[in-house]
This record gives sequence, structure tokens and C-alpha cells, in this order.
Amino acid sequence: MEEALDTAGEGERLRRQLRFVLELDRAKSVLRRTYLTDGSRLENDGEHMWHAMLAGLVLAEHADDPVDPLRLALMLAVHDIVEIDAGDTFVYASAEVQADKVVREKAAAERIFGLLPEDQRDTFASLWEEFEAHETPLARMAAAIDRLLPLMMNRAVEARTWREHGISAGQVFTVNSRIGEGSSTLWSFARAVLEAAERDGLFEA
Amino acid sequence: MEEALDTAGEGERLRRQLRFVLELDRAKSVLRRTYLTDGSRLENDGEHMWHAMLAGLVLAEHADDPVDPLRLALMLAVHDIVEIDAGDTFVYASAEVQADKVVREKAAAERIFGLLPEDQRDTFASLWEEFEAHETPLARMAAAIDRLLPLMMNRAVEARTWREHGISAGQVFTVNSRIGEGSSTLWSFARAVLEAAERDGLFEA
Repeated sequence: MEEALDTAGEGERLRRQLRFVLELDRAKSVLRRTYLTDGSRLENDGEHMWHAMLAGLVLAEHADDPVDPLRLALMLAVHDIVEIDAGDTFVYASAEVQADKVVREKAAAERIFGLLPEDQRDTFASLWEEFEAHETPLARMAAAIDRLLPLMMNRAVEARTWREHGISAGQVFTVNSRIGEGSSTLWSFARAVLEAAERDGLFEA
Repeated sequence: MEEALDTAGEGERLRRQLRFVLELDRAKSVLRRTYLTDGSRLENDGEHMWHAMLAGLVLAEHADDPVDPLRLALMLAVHDIVEIDAGDTFVYASAEVQADKVVREKAAAERIFGLLPEDQRDTFASLWEEFEAHETPLARMAAAIDRLLPLMMNRAVEARTWREHGISAGQVFTVNSRIGEGSSTLWSFARAVLEAAERDGLFEA
């Protein structure tokens, strides 16, 4: 690719953009704990970000504080890029693992977004930082969508992920209550999904 | 899911939105002919749309006619959803297969976008129709990105897709010259990639 860029007489800007674009391909090999709804395999980060961004676009109107659907979609399209280096951290992981995650992801953001020209690096990095800080209505709604999807998908495969990892109903309710910080409508739906799962005996006793 | 929607007392609008969101999961099982850059497996439509939308965002400035980067990203994020029903059509397929594709994809768009509430259905359907018509600068740039990615990825695996399917240099140049209808900069780079592949003997004689 570098050779072709030389031949085409292209400068540093396109070169950096294309390096970043090629690097993104690796997110497709970072596996999550969620199964596809047909149960055939685990989901990867690339397809998850796509699914989340479209879910954000469609569900943005249910945010408790108004958010721009396009910015929500954009935030969700970039929110897990850092996992190319840092790996996926299970949302039910221990506090130690979660603490280490912050350090690893910060370094990853510097390296990966740093492949881009500075103006674009700043756009991507600030979207990701806003998501991680979980302080703005936009970030809270993005986190709600990011939790809602695996919950719906996991329900479609009889809670396989929770059962495989021995996750209790209490843990699931606590972790997913974050949905309510972005959207009380989506949390009311999610709670009904979880209560039905509990009635169906899908959690550890 | 339907039961939980009843419990949560939610109406038809959220119900339709969530049905659509769950349906999107199936795009992750539609395989394309492109390999990931590490050669480990074929790419699927979900992760491809994510990759394309981010590439669009980063490369939008290279369009010959100015395009809105966010709308370009959005168009690329939805451009292959119809393949959930219609399947992926190889870009080097025969004219008969290509003709049939139009009919199959139109029916797919009606069913899948039709899951959404009407206003959102119209937004998605019109983005997809604009992409397919290939008439606006936005659609031409989206098509350029959609061609550029597999070309770059295929180069990373020594043109494996072209070799497996016996695609000639002539076919590759013809199909990919569409990149030049959206961006002469990207086409100049792509042509250099193809010429290098030809020199390296990666095409059928």
C-alpha cells in the first residue's frame, strides 16, 4: 500500500487516513461475550459497533434528555475501537480488571486514533472520551444502547452468556440499570425482559 | 421480547423499532467474498458496513464533488442491509445474476425497512435508493468507498479473492474504475495498487 501511495504521488494526509482505515479491520477479530441471535458464534467488535450505531439512530428519540441521533450513531460507531489493542473487557468482570481497562484503553486510543491526521484524531478521540466519561446525555444514551443490545441478543439464545459465566440476576439488574440513566423507556422494557428471564429460571439460583 | 413489550406497556412504535434492531443481527451472517486482512475468514455484511461507514467519514474530503461526511457515513452504514434477504451478489457476477439482484433487493428493502415506523422506514429506504441509483455525488462517493475497501483488503492477502474466482486484471480494472466516478484521488491510489498487483503476477494470465 505504501508503494502505491508513492506511485500515486499522494502525501502524508491520505497515507495516514488509509493506514487508520486498514487498522480498523482488526476490530473484526476482537470477540465479545455476546452470541449472535441464532447462537452460531460469538459477536465481534466491528459488527457490534455497526449494530449499536443503527440501534442508536433508530432509538435516539427515547433518550430522557434530547440527543442528536447522528452524533449518537457516530459515538456508537467508534466506542469500541480501542479494543483493537485493549481487548474486550466483560461487563461483569471484577473491579481489578475494570480498573486496568482504563489504562489499557487510554494507551490504545492514543496509538490508534493517532494514526489519523491531527484534526480527525481529535474528532475521534473526543467522541470516545465523551463516551467513556459517561457524563453527557449523549454518552448516557450511548451506554444505554450498548447495554440494551447484548441483553436483547442474550435473551434470544436463552441467556446463554449469563449461564455460561454464572452471572446472577442481581449482577444483571445492577449492570443493566445503567440503561435507565439514558432512557427510562428502554430501561422499563429491559427490566421486563429481565423479569421474564428470571421467571423462566434462566439465572443461577 | 413481545411479552416484555406488553409488560412494559409499550406501544407499536417502540415495538417496530426493536423488531428492526433485532432483525439487523442477521446481516452478521451474510458472507461476502472478501477476506479479513489476516486471511482468517471471509468478511460479513455487518462488519463490512461498519468498516465502510468509518472509511467514508475519514475519506469524505477526497470526493470530487463535496459531500456531507455524516450523510456519507450513514449511507454506507445502511447500503447492504437488503442483503439480509437478498444475499451478497459478487461484484464480478454475470449480467443475469446482477439483473436478478435488483428485483431481489427491492423486495428485501420493502420487507426489512418496512419493519420500522413509517417516518424511519422512509429515511432508510430513501438513503438506500439514492445509493442504488448511483446518480448523486453522495452515492458515487459511497460506491467508491464500497469498492476501495475490498481492493485494499484483497491486496493484503495477495489478491486471494481474485485468484480463487479467476478474475482477470481487465475485469478488476473495469469494476473498480467506478472509484473514479466518486473520487479521482482515491482512483489514482487504487490504480497504483492494481498496477503493482499486476506486476507481482497476482492476476490470471
